[in-house]
Amino acid sequence: MQPSTHRQERGPFCCVVHEVGLRDGLQMEKQIVPTGQKIAWAEGLMAAGLDILQLGSFVHPDKVPQMADTDLLFNHFKKPGRKPERVILSGLVLNEKGLERGEACGVEMYCLGVSASDTHSRKNTGMSSAEATERIVSTAQTALAAGKRVQVSVQSAFGCGFEGPVPQDRVLGIIGRYLDAGLRNISLADTAGHGHPVQVRRMLEAVFKLDAALECSCHFHNTYGLGLANCYAAMEAGVGTFESSLAGLGGCPFTRVAAGNVCTEDFVHFLQRAGQRQDIDLAGLIALAKEFAAFFDREMPGLVHKSGSPAKTG
Amino acid sequence: MQPSTHRQERGPFCCVVHEVGLRDGLQMEKQIVPTGQKIAWAEGLMAAGLDILQLGSFVHPDKVPQMADTDLLFNHFKKPGRKPERVILSGLVLNEKGLERGEACGVEMYCLGVSASDTHSRKNTGMSSAEATERIVSTAQTALAAGKRVQVSVQSAFGCGFEGPVPQDRVLGIIGRYLDAGLRNISLADTAGHGHPVQVRRMLEAVFKLDAALECSCHFHNTYGLGLANCYAAMEAGVGTFESSLAGLGGCPFTRVAAGNVCTEDFVHFLQRAGQRQDIDLAGLIALAKEFAAFFDREMPGLVHKSGSPAKTG
Repeated sequence: MQPSTHRQERGPFCCVVHEVGLRDGLQMEKQIVPTGQKIAWAEGLMAAGLDILQLGSFVHPDKVPQMADTDLLFNHFKKPGRKPERVILSGLVLNEKGLERGEACGVEMYCLGVSASDTHSRKNTGMSSAEATERIVSTAQTALAAGKRVQVSVQSAFGCGFEGPVPQDRVLGIIGRYLDAGLRNISLADTAGHGHPVQVRRMLEAVFKLDAALECSCHFHNTYGLGLANCYAAMEAGVGTFESSLAGLGGCPFTRVAAGNVCTEDFVHFLQRAGQRQDIDLAGLIALAKEFAAFFDREMPGLVHKSGSPAKTG
Repeated sequence: MQPSTHRQERGPFCCVVHEVGLRDGLQMEKQIVPTGQKIAWAEGLMAAGLDILQLGSFVHPDKVPQMADTDLLFNHFKKPGRKPERVILSGLVLNEKGLERGEACGVEMYCLGVSASDTHSRKNTGMSSAEATERIVSTAQTALAAGKRVQVSVQSAFGCGFEGPVPQDRVLGIIGRYLDAGLRNISLADTAGHGHPVQVRRMLEAVFKLDAALECSCHFHNTYGLGLANCYAAMEAGVGTFESSLAGLGGCPFTRVAAGNVCTEDFVHFLQRAGQRQDIDLAGLIALAKEFAAFFDREMPGLVHKSGSPAKTG
C-alpha cells in the first residue's frame, strides 16, 4: 500500500494543496527560469506550508526546455535538511524513460496522466487515449511496485480545447481502468478550463460511485473564471486534494485555449476564510506571488495578492 | 401583490440576470460617461437579452456626479418603443426624495438597501444600521403601495471592509424586519467581497428558513476571486436572481477594500455551459465588454471576453 496523501490524515474537510506552478506554470513561460531561482521559490513554497510541491516534468529537454533542470532540482532537494520532512516532492513523468530519470534523482511522488480527448492525446503523446492509457498504467504500476506514491490523472476531463465536450463515460472508463490496475490515487484535470461547477459535481459523484474510498485530486484552470467555483463544487463532492499554481501561473502548451491554473494563494485564502488550513502562511504566499509578478514583469492572474489579505472572518 | 421577477416564471434552475454595471460599475469610475454613451450601452445590454437593467442611482449629484443623469436616462427609456417589453428597468433609491424623483421619471423597480455593518451604514448614510433599516422600510412600503416592484437589500451581508466579520444573526434580523413589513423581494450584497461559498450556502439556508418562498437575489464582488463560486453556492441554495456588471466593472466608493462586481458575461457563460439561458446573446455581451475596455482604455476584470467564448459543452 502506498503512503497516503489523503485529507483524512489531516482531519475532515481539510484540503491538501499540491503546488504545480514550478511545472505547469513555468512550462508555459517563454523565459527559462534559472535553477537557483527555482530553488529559492521552491524553498519559499515549502516554508509557507504547502503540502506537495511539483518540481518539474521528466519530458525531453528539447521539447520543453523550461523543464531541463528537473533532475537537478530533485537531486538538490534530496540532500538531507534541504526540505521539511512533511513536504512531498512530486514530478510528472510521461513514460518509462522518465520514470528511470525520476528514480535516479529521488522523486517522492509520480504524477502520470492520460488525456480523455483523442485529439489532445495524439498531440501530446502521438497515441490515442486508449493506447496512452495502457502505457501509463504499465509505467504507474512499475512506480507503485517500487514503493512510491503514484497519482494517475485524466487530462481534458471536463472538455477539450480541440474536441469540445468530452463524454463523462470516457473519463469514467479511464478511471475504471486505473482502479482495475490498483491505481487508486486519481486526479481529474480540466486542462482547457471548460469545466463548470454543475458538471464537476455530477462527474465527481459518478467517480465516487466507482469507488467511494479512492483518493481524488482536482486540477482546474481559470480560463473562464470558474476555477474556484469548480474547487468548491469538488470539495462539496468529497475531493480532498487540489492542484494549483502560485499567482495563477500556468496552462498547457499543447491545448488550444488555456489560461492560468487556479491560483494557490486565492485558493488558500478561500480555505482560511472557511476555517481550514490556518497552518499555511498566506502572507508568505502573497509575498512570493508579488515576487513572481516582479520576475516576469507583468500582472499575474491571482487576485488576493493584488487586493491584499483581509482580516480572517471564519 | 407586486409583480414577480422570480425565476419560477422562467422555469426551474433558470437564473435571472440583473445588470448593475451602469450603476455599481460607473459610480466607481473617475470618468463621467456621457448620457448618450450610457443609452447606447443600455440598448446593447437589453438587446443581448438581460432581464433587469439598473440605470442609475437617485443620489445627490454632488455626492456621486457619475449618477447625475439618472432621471434623464429613465425619462429616455420610458418613451414607447425604446426598450423591449420584457426588460425591467431598476433604480437605486436611498430615501423618500429619491423615490419622488424615481416616480417622476418612470422607474419600474426600486432597489433600496441597508448595510448590516454599523460603520459602513454610518459612512454611507450617517445613520446606524437599525435607524437606516426603519427609514428604508418606510420608503419601500411607500413604493410598494404605489404598485411598483421593490427589492430591499442587506449590504455588507458577508463581511465589512471596516468591521470585518458581520454576524449572520444581524443579517437575518434585517431580513426578518423586511418580511414583517411585507417586503419579500430580498437581495444579499457582499459589498466588500468577503463572502466565501461555504458561508454563502450557510447564510442562504438560514434565510430560506425564515421564508422558503421569498424572492432572493445575490450581489457578489470578485475581490478575492470567489464571485462565481459564491454565485454557484447561492444557486445551489435556491437563489434565482443575480446582480452582476458587464466586464466586471464596479465596487463601492464607501467601503475600504472593494473590487469589481461579478462579471456578467462570465456569469452568463457559466449559465450557458450549465444548459441555462441559451436565449442570452453571449457574443453580444462579449462585444460590449470589449467596448467597455476600449472606452476606459484599460484591461477589464472579466475573463470570457479575453479568453473567447468556447463551443458550448452543456
